[in-house]
Amino acid sequence: MAHIDLGFDEKELPGIRGLLRYRPETAKPLGDLAEVLLRGPHPLSPGERELIAAYVSRRNGCEFCCSSHSAFAAAQLDAGMTAVDQTLASLDTAPVSAKLRALLRIAGAVQQSGRTVTPDLVDAARAEGASDIEIHDTVLIAAAFCMFNRYVDGLGTVVPPDPESYHEAARRTVEFGYAA
Amino acid sequence: MAHIDLGFDEKELPGIRGLLRYRPETAKPLGDLAEVLLRGPHPLSPGERELIAAYVSRRNGCEFCCSSHSAFAAAQLDAGMTAVDQTLASLDTAPVSAKLRALLRIAGAVQQSGRTVTPDLVDAARAEGASDIEIHDTVLIAAAFCMFNRYVDGLGTVVPPDPESYHEAARRTVEFGYAA
Repeated sequence: MAHIDLGFDEKELPGIRGLLRYRPETAKPLGDLAEVLLRGPHPLSPGERELIAAYVSRRNGCEFCCSSHSAFAAAQLDAGMTAVDQTLASLDTAPVSAKLRALLRIAGAVQQSGRTVTPDLVDAARAEGASDIEIHDTVLIAAAFCMFNRYVDGLGTVVPPDPESYHEAARRTVEFGYAA
Repeated sequence: MAHIDLGFDEKELPGIRGLLRYRPETAKPLGDLAEVLLRGPHPLSPGERELIAAYVSRRNGCEFCCSSHSAFAAAQLDAGMTAVDQTLASLDTAPVSAKLRALLRIAGAVQQSGRTVTPDLVDAARAEGASDIEIHDTVLIAAAFCMFNRYVDGLGTVVPPDPESYHEAARRTVEFGYAA
């Protein structure tokens, strides 16, 4: 049960969805930020960016965000949930490009602390072809999910136990996005 | 030196300021979020909310954000920098209301992980008079600074060494806000 009274049955709007309904003034910039970072025009595909979000959420132990963004990544990656599961299990053997693997290592550092992102990690991503905007957005996606994860868990929101609800959310998100 | 080429002399726009100029598409929702959380209509004063931001930034070891929001808090609190310094040194003896002290304890938990916010911490804040919206926004301010801190440090931005630049930034922020 959430730590605050959201004013409606929170099972109908689990995780962050209830919080966005509760406080529309903050929901607007949060939705706009997710839309730009995960779905805006970009050299990384939406599926690749959702994978970064899922990876950071898993490392933060946020079940709702990890399940959600894993489903959103799987819905938009050719290799589907297999690619997601293998990436979350081990970055070394993940079936992703060398560039995305290097960017995921930067995201993993950001999850710990911004100060653990070393020039070596950045140089390694550049050596695999990562551009400035890809490095910038990887850091900001990882940082943003350190916020979203803490927001969802810090207010004790409900986590749906059935996998189907995440696939339904994925269909909705792929079609309508985050800013609606 | 920043990990990416911002396209201008970063000493002129240190910390997050250079990143906001570099990527206006993400700067807009980030600025809007800070404006609502730190300066929008609220039972906590802007100075009290800036103090939460400074406290979390100090715990994340983000020098730029801690110096900035300490100056912004000091400019808007009756007890000025004395209140900020004492709060950052020890929450137990900080010269703040019992309600704000309990909310700062929640913010400190969020800084570690959303999952460390216990019903006991929330009940303690409620016992001091904290409302649902104050608890919600404390969690989101703390979570947002876990993002801003990682963004600023994860991209290796320049930190101005002179205290005066933070006071100048405080005058600008108090007058014009974050959304401009």
